[in-house]
Amino acid sequence: MSRQAFYPHLSVDCVLIGFDEEGLKVLLVEKTQFEPGHTGTISKLPGDLIYEEEELDAAARRVLFDMTGMSSPHLEQFHTFGAPSRIKNPEDRAWVEAVSGQKIGRLVTVAYMAMLRISTKLRKLMESHKTRWVPVDDLPELAFDHRDIIDLALERVRSSVKKEPALIYDMLPAKFTALQLRRLNEEIHGKPMDVRNFHKKIASRPYIVPLDEKEEGVPHRAARYYRFDRKIYNRLYCRS
Amino acid sequence: MSRQAFYPHLSVDCVLIGFDEEGLKVLLVEKTQFEPGHTGTISKLPGDLIYEEEELDAAARRVLFDMTGMSSPHLEQFHTFGAPSRIKNPEDRAWVEAVSGQKIGRLVTVAYMAMLRISTKLRKLMESHKTRWVPVDDLPELAFDHRDIIDLALERVRSSVKKEPALIYDMLPAKFTALQLRRLNEEIHGKPMDVRNFHKKIASRPYIVPLDEKEEGVPHRAARYYRFDRKIYNRLYCRS
Repeated sequence: MSRQAFYPHLSVDCVLIGFDEEGLKVLLVEKTQFEPGHTGTISKLPGDLIYEEEELDAAARRVLFDMTGMSSPHLEQFHTFGAPSRIKNPEDRAWVEAVSGQKIGRLVTVAYMAMLRISTKLRKLMESHKTRWVPVDDLPELAFDHRDIIDLALERVRSSVKKEPALIYDMLPAKFTALQLRRLNEEIHGKPMDVRNFHKKIASRPYIVPLDEKEEGVPHRAARYYRFDRKIYNRLYCRS
Repeated sequence: MSRQAFYPHLSVDCVLIGFDEEGLKVLLVEKTQFEPGHTGTISKLPGDLIYEEEELDAAARRVLFDMTGMSSPHLEQFHTFGAPSRIKNPEDRAWVEAVSGQKIGRLVTVAYMAMLRISTKLRKLMESHKTRWVPVDDLPELAFDHRDIIDLALERVRSSVKKEPALIYDMLPAKFTALQLRRLNEEIHGKPMDVRNFHKKIASRPYIVPLDEKEEGVPHRAARYYRFDRKIYNRLYCRS
């Protein structure tokens, strides 16, 4: 193994995991193919090389803002991916060298993630930035090791929600239906839930508060809305 | 902010958090001071620059083995520290340049951690490697941002044990006293526990099994030994 001087490049990548009425999704951007013989685009996570004097967290926030227009979600650093093989694909290497104007040897990336609700406003913002929300169970071919990065982020979502179930309500609208809550649970845990048991569970949770309000203009029977009451939740579980 | 090419150096650092009869400790090594006007040594975490074709996890295992002789504990990557200021101390910079034989600009480090029991065997191994176990509540001045790295590792120990209480028994001998278990709990959570309540708690936990065996050759009243029964624990909490 060579012990001589070498200088890796360092990037950040952001995994935004969101939920809308259709399901659990991840935000992707397109990169143009650069190698001869490759045409069109391939999907990747929003990311960039860090600047010389830039803090890692600041680089992640910059990437998110530049590529999506978003400044709000709290990004959390979750893992650094540094396998020498992650830039072995000539097409990926050609792209990052073309975009950065630099010769790239090894590329190590610090990955950040956020969990959020895909609101209508957010969806519009994303469209104007040429990004797209893609269902996590229907991901296209991805550049670099971005598939591995997304897989680990989803694992972290699962373990975070197990540890702190209230996190799930950050991904739901203020008013949500039982179907939405069940579907989000199913997608996060990757397995179907019994509908009847799920309704019993909802009824037994005082912090899931039924509203006197139902869906409007839907082709099926209008479902009741619920809201999450954080005060009741915190009181029950002694969390601050 | 400069967007021109720059090449950070990349290192790994290992935080080993161990417990012995005296308390919770972290493993430190000494580095020689290099700047004129500085004499003696200063403490740091075991760490090194990564090699050109080396996986991050492999680099962490290499550092641990070379600096401590240990190959066993499972190291987990927990955070990457990359503040431009972390190498601003001229003494730290002089040292890393002297040791590596390289001019160092920015130094980003991927931090790994492990929780373990400091056995007699392990203590001897460490002594022969010029490393030392230092109480976490009595840390000396440390090089770089290693104090921040240790603080975050301790936070992670706390949240891991909250999430998975069985982890605490990995840090205890196979036979342990109630005092050892209480002290480890107190050190991890950073607050004293009521002795009587703690004994009630032990008695109510079927997986903390009292043994027909007591301490020997101690100046105080010999305390009973207990063992942790993982099978009972797993059965109770449906964990695998």
